[in-house]
Amino acid sequence: MIIVLKPRVTDQQITHILDKLKDLKLKPTVSKGIERTIIGVIGDEAKLRLQPLEAYAGVEKVMAVQTPYKMVSREFHKDSSVIKLGKGVVIGGKKVVIMAGPCTIETRERLLKLARIAKGEGATVLRGGAFKPRTSPYDFQGLGETGLKYLVEARRKTGLLSVTEMMDVRDLPLFEKYADIIQIGARNMQNYNLLKEVGRSHKPVLLKRGMANTIQEFLMAAEYIYSQGNHSLILCERGMRSFESTTRFSLDIGAIPVLKAKTHLPVVVDPSHPAGNRTYVPAIARAGVAAGADGIIVEIHDKPEEAVCDGPQALLPEMFAELMVEMRAIARAIGRDI
Amino acid sequence: MIIVLKPRVTDQQITHILDKLKDLKLKPTVSKGIERTIIGVIGDEAKLRLQPLEAYAGVEKVMAVQTPYKMVSREFHKDSSVIKLGKGVVIGGKKVVIMAGPCTIETRERLLKLARIAKGEGATVLRGGAFKPRTSPYDFQGLGETGLKYLVEARRKTGLLSVTEMMDVRDLPLFEKYADIIQIGARNMQNYNLLKEVGRSHKPVLLKRGMANTIQEFLMAAEYIYSQGNHSLILCERGMRSFESTTRFSLDIGAIPVLKAKTHLPVVVDPSHPAGNRTYVPAIARAGVAAGADGIIVEIHDKPEEAVCDGPQALLPEMFAELMVEMRAIARAIGRDI
Amino acid sequence: MIIVLKPRVTDQQITHILDKLKDLKLKPTVSKGIERTIIGVIGDEAKLRLQPLEAYAGVEKVMAVQTPYKMVSREFHKDSSVIKLGKGVVIGGKKVVIMAGPCTIETRERLLKLARIAKGEGATVLRGGAFKPRTSPYDFQGLGETGLKYLVEARRKTGLLSVTEMMDVRDLPLFEKYADIIQIGARNMQNYNLLKEVGRSHKPVLLKRGMANTIQEFLMAAEYIYSQGNHSLILCERGMRSFESTTRFSLDIGAIPVLKAKTHLPVVVDPSHPAGNRTYVPAIARAGVAAGADGIIVEIHDKPEEAVCDGPQALLPEMFAELMVEMRAIARAIGRDI
Amino acid sequence: MIIVLKPRVTDQQITHILDKLKDLKLKPTVSKGIERTIIGVIGDEAKLRLQPLEAYAGVEKVMAVQTPYKMVSREFHKDSSVIKLGKGVVIGGKKVVIMAGPCTIETRERLLKLARIAKGEGATVLRGGAFKPRTSPYDFQGLGETGLKYLVEARRKTGLLSVTEMMDVRDLPLFEKYADIIQIGARNMQNYNLLKEVGRSHKPVLLKRGMANTIQEFLMAAEYIYSQGNHSLILCERGMRSFESTTRFSLDIGAIPVLKAKTHLPVVVDPSHPAGNRTYVPAIARAGVAAGADGIIVEIHDKPEEAVCDGPQALLPEMFAELMVEMRAIARAIGRDI
Repeated sequence: MIIVLKPRVTDQQITHILDKLKDLKLKPTVSKGIERTIIGVIGDEAKLRLQPLEAYAGVEKVMAVQTPYKMVSREFHKDSSVIKLGKGVVIGGKKVVIMAGPCTIETRERLLKLARIAKGEGATVLRGGAFKPRTSPYDFQGLGETGLKYLVEARRKTGLLSVTEMMDVRDLPLFEKYADIIQIGARNMQNYNLLKEVGRSHKPVLLKRGMANTIQEFLMAAEYIYSQGNHSLILCERGMRSFESTTRFSLDIGAIPVLKAKTHLPVVVDPSHPAGNRTYVPAIARAGVAAGADGIIVEIHDKPEEAVCDGPQALLPEMFAELMVEMRAIARAIGRDI
Repeated sequence: MIIVLKPRVTDQQITHILDKLKDLKLKPTVSKGIERTIIGVIGDEAKLRLQPLEAYAGVEKVMAVQTPYKMVSREFHKDSSVIKLGKGVVIGGKKVVIMAGPCTIETRERLLKLARIAKGEGATVLRGGAFKPRTSPYDFQGLGETGLKYLVEARRKTGLLSVTEMMDVRDLPLFEKYADIIQIGARNMQNYNLLKEVGRSHKPVLLKRGMANTIQEFLMAAEYIYSQGNHSLILCERGMRSFESTTRFSLDIGAIPVLKAKTHLPVVVDPSHPAGNRTYVPAIARAGVAAGADGIIVEIHDKPEEAVCDGPQALLPEMFAELMVEMRAIARAIGRDI
Repeated sequence: MIIVLKPRVTDQQITHILDKLKDLKLKPTVSKGIERTIIGVIGDEAKLRLQPLEAYAGVEKVMAVQTPYKMVSREFHKDSSVIKLGKGVVIGGKKVVIMAGPCTIETRERLLKLARIAKGEGATVLRGGAFKPRTSPYDFQGLGETGLKYLVEARRKTGLLSVTEMMDVRDLPLFEKYADIIQIGARNMQNYNLLKEVGRSHKPVLLKRGMANTIQEFLMAAEYIYSQGNHSLILCERGMRSFESTTRFSLDIGAIPVLKAKTHLPVVVDPSHPAGNRTYVPAIARAGVAAGADGIIVEIHDKPEEAVCDGPQALLPEMFAELMVEMRAIARAIGRDI
Repeated sequence: MIIVLKPRVTDQQITHILDKLKDLKLKPTVSKGIERTIIGVIGDEAKLRLQPLEAYAGVEKVMAVQTPYKMVSREFHKDSSVIKLGKGVVIGGKKVVIMAGPCTIETRERLLKLARIAKGEGATVLRGGAFKPRTSPYDFQGLGETGLKYLVEARRKTGLLSVTEMMDVRDLPLFEKYADIIQIGARNMQNYNLLKEVGRSHKPVLLKRGMANTIQEFLMAAEYIYSQGNHSLILCERGMRSFESTTRFSLDIGAIPVLKAKTHLPVVVDPSHPAGNRTYVPAIARAGVAAGADGIIVEIHDKPEEAVCDGPQALLPEMFAELMVEMRAIARAIGRDI
């Protein structure tokens, strides 16, 4: 921790700060310059984060040296985490995992049909929402438990694992019973009680980055889950809110190498929500694979006109088939596979 | 609703869209131009929002004419809502309501002390968190129910109403028992199950705008609460996430007149979180009153060095006293009062 | 300057960095912690900014302690700059300066009419563009020199000083001849050659903040002008680009107190461009005065239907008159005047 | 153009608007709904853009149907533009063009050395700035004309074309004499006089997107150049300003497919400026190729410690060599080549 003092700090103020640091069993080093005095502090920054040092008289700003997340940091776990999702599917290794399916589970028949299409092209996980976070209270809110049961049936018939969003802390028993991977959506990335709840579960979790959250906040949210004991954790970049409106969100492609450098957890890219329009989905998906993502989660639909949600951004089956060919070729070009 | 068709749309595609619109009992008008054909649709847009029209072949984009929120819109309720909060405190009328207190409830003694300071300067509501949404799982998470009890004691001793944040759907009974106004924080603005839960309560709700949510999304979140039957609803602007880092968030001052134009609900400004530093709080608070806010919610602390959270942005008692004088003068300058 | 080293930095790398610092005649202090080693550097940071220290092996990041701007900083010039604009008009003192007029100079008659309206309500500066930065090459680009001459005529007839935008380095002689205050627009805030050019002029300059520039970049742009010798410099906040679309830009109200703390230069608020709609202009203007702005620059028009540019955001004369009354009352409420 | 009227618009106001539209020889169609009346307008929207319709009484908003850019639009020029840059180098076709070199031209020797490295790995264009837009007036501003001469020497010795930034309208003769491709930097994307100036040149232009400009504004800036007669125009995405600080800018990867859909001009990706750190450059460069970019412009340096600018983000020669292998493999995976 570096404490930068104000230009006209008094000796008394400096002494007061140093006393506080010593009380905390930290080792301060004072450097007096012509314009500024700075105090470097050696020791556990966590102790200092609990102290409102910037509230002390004479302090201009406090700059952290250490990262506030620990367990999800690559500094504390050199090797990339390789997570077993079930049925032989592994994420974080050489193979890029493809998760595909509808935005929302609409009917049993459609889900099974889309599951077969996904499976046929090489996906190993079926995505589909049973509980939907809708901007409008008047929009369809999802099939609920019935939807989750359809996912189980789809798994039985196709062998695909399921990933589906949980929004309410009270629903954990349902998800533990029916889902293979629990998704925490972007809007709930800082719903800390929900994070703690899935942190106590034994199910793998796919955590989406909030649309205006920094990578550091994203990793702190991951730390909430990981520190509760659930280490089967996958991160997902799905686009930032920006001023650009031709796409719904702006996928932060730089976040892929940054996350791979800062954490040992696998990283997945969602090209559908940032695109908002199927025309733009394949390019973003290919970019995700090329940038080093460990997985791609993409929306598909055979009749987008009938989709109850996000029809415009769902890939048609033939587009998905073509994209799979391209993604596989790109994965191989960088020493991976699909 | 306006449907803009692609440059090379076919007659068959147009017919297909028109058939769909007629099935929905809507009245389309087709205008064929040299470059573009557009379809204007008269009737209830809500029907169309449930249809993925952009997923239809030949459609380039769909533009809404009506607002997706209804009950919170000023079009549907011309007069400003005036909400009774209890003990004679009313928000949305001539008087600007001042809510002040610590970020977090730390100890019984400190809360009572700060309540007396707030009361002494003219505040009518005491703010203070018992359940805290903290970025880090290792930070202090709040006193919980004990904190809520201290708020009740403070009310008994000073007459101040309380406003305090609820984060978990399971906590509603606690808040119904102890709190006067339930705050939904910025991070939970799109936690729809939480919105529905407080929408079924009879307690007034203060809903904070998410740090990267549009005003339309904010009003849709308000509609979630209002449409469940809870009409004692207050909106709060607390700053947007931006690229600027000298302040924590960028308060959207333009949102005050926009909200006053679009909704009948009262609007409160929080100058503390966007400032992030007490030096900048008074200017933002004054601006809020001048822009037409119905209330100001501000953090105060007598010993910021000991604050467990957000000490740097808490106003010292003497700064708060001075700010109250300035805000009152500004309120009177525009025909209001404090 | 603080240099944070990577977790596994070698002694050799540290020695290499220290040697470099000593070559520069700087005094480094090394603090070795358990997880991290940091180097604090005392001395002129300017020397270090010219060195790509982050490119050195073993360096994780470099954190500046000093501000990169010097002459415009309040640390180097404690008192607020009070700038004489001519004809007895002074900015940066007790009086808030009102600058009003059309977006674009359209005709001689209209400019004179609007000048008389502005003067009548108490404005002391007439705004109006003769060279317009238009998003489209097909839009009206301004009257050019003719427009500047109309400003001179308006000054002769009303006594109002003029502020008008210069976009091209080759136009300085024209502006020196005709304008009272040269405006550098938001789009040209980082057009460094233009900044240097007006920095060599003796005319007062009003520098607008770029729509996505940080306050530090804004002050560095000001430093470009100031360091060339032109100290008659006024800063103007006019709104940031954001995700919100009900307004054109989001005025950064927090920038007013931040700028007043960091620089001695006067600060003006433009409420018209962020509003984008006259309905929202008065609230933002009042907020600017309440937050401590030294001036307000606002667009007015008597027949917005005929305006060639930005008609929707121009205040009608009666709205402007009412706003002047409110702004004056607010200015007095905080110990200033208009 | 769609004109949405206010809920309580009067018949007189409607008539007034219709009269105006007829004066302009446009064909309006009125649709009266229960809640709203809308007017659809057929004809040349350009006429309407010059009219401040939103300033008319009774008008709520005006929505454009046509794009405001014409000549750069793919609607007006179906086939992708293939641009000859000289020496057999072509951009916009099957081959992805690699442009590499230092941020700034430092010395003759270094430039030649880096040119040989770039050439050796397969680049066909040498990048390097002689006139540098620096945030601080105290930083190195470039070698000027001398730097341009070194580029000419490098071309003679290696056969590489040059791309280099022009910042001042007065410098066109210099660039016409020495440069092969004139770069307009992000900070000058809306410096319209500079755009017009290079629009009258016969040299190919590489136009970078401003850090907070929408794609529509980017294409309007391109239209400024194109409409002046210079059709050798290349667009470059180089990252948006955002709230994320682990990278300098957030590359808008979705902009690649959007631009390819909306314009016929070639699109280049700059992975260096958004990364800000060489560790993250290769992933972003690979993503650019995979997303469909027609070129990559990347910074390289053999001794980043000695770079006068942006050393931390320059790729070392061995990293560049490795990246070239990966990019070539990815290009081939999607039917292109390098």
